[in-house]
Amino acid sequence: MADQRERWSIVDALSHSRHDWMNKLQLIKGHLSLKKYDRVKEIIDEIVVEAKQESKLCNLNMPSFAELLLTYNWKGHLLILDYEVLGEAMDCSGLDEEMFHFTTDLFQILNQNIDKKQENHITITLELFKTENNVRFFYDFNGILTDDKTLLTFLEQYQSDAITVQQIHFDTYEFTLMVSKS
Amino acid sequence: MADQRERWSIVDALSHSRHDWMNKLQLIKGHLSLKKYDRVKEIIDEIVVEAKQESKLCNLNMPSFAELLLTYNWKGHLLILDYEVLGEAMDCSGLDEEMFHFTTDLFQILNQNIDKKQENHITITLELFKTENNVRFFYDFNGILTDDKTLLTFLEQYQSDAITVQQIHFDTYEFTLMVSKS
Repeated sequence: MADQRERWSIVDALSHSRHDWMNKLQLIKGHLSLKKYDRVKEIIDEIVVEAKQESKLCNLNMPSFAELLLTYNWKGHLLILDYEVLGEAMDCSGLDEEMFHFTTDLFQILNQNIDKKQENHITITLELFKTENNVRFFYDFNGILTDDKTLLTFLEQYQSDAITVQQIHFDTYEFTLMVSKS
Repeated sequence: MADQRERWSIVDALSHSRHDWMNKLQLIKGHLSLKKYDRVKEIIDEIVVEAKQESKLCNLNMPSFAELLLTYNWKGHLLILDYEVLGEAMDCSGLDEEMFHFTTDLFQILNQNIDKKQENHITITLELFKTENNVRFFYDFNGILTDDKTLLTFLEQYQSDAITVQQIHFDTYEFTLMVSKS
């Protein structure tokens, strides 16, 4: 599949990020004016947790994969992305290009084969095992697949020296994939 | 002078930006815990004003110049940069490369010829006149120049078809330059 990489300019990326931060600030401002100070503190704590996740993702030495995840929702795709990073940050540079390509291809197939009228959500969970120098990537989809076959064919035919893709669970409304080092 | 452009990666730029936003959030959090709610509101209003300035800068169609200004302080230079954008945003794309090069060269000369032990500050003010399709850039320096001559020679020899550089005021501690379309 062709490289779907679209280069972001720094100015565009910072503009999108600024927009997201302004929304968070707006939320804080709203609760402040309602004098809901405890809720404001909770919101700030949630933002801090989210920022720490983002920061961890940026410290894996996976510039292409991290950029894809950080900027994906700014493109206005049907599929909504969420991610979390569990465990201590470690060097995953050897998997960067492979994970970028696999994820880009997967997202593209999903966007072409999901029900446009429904919410379609994917969560990527990175499980880092620093001492074992190992990492696992879980892809949890929730939504409606209009065509399972294209996706199943892609998954079954997926060939890579660097990573192995396993189907943990698969149906039209939900699937979980586990990607690990080969 | 050689092109000093150093390409930022999206991940690095977003990491620096996140760091700045987290500092702002920390400030809000601090005042919240002191129950200084009016000050929190003021801080948020100041952040909003700053973000609007940034947003205006990003809407001038000057990707190189805007990127330089947005990312400059992240490099830890001696010279500290500040900027403001006055007037309604307009298309300044024709001046982007020229302003990027002039500003990069000016910053480089300043960093080599200012007193390291002092605070050295430059404020760039963009005055936009949308109806006249005109724009002026003011460079206000405050600090200590250890060598005036290199800078003065650069300014006097600066040749460009697109822009004209004028010295409004010049001494060792302070100078103001005005750059306008030729």
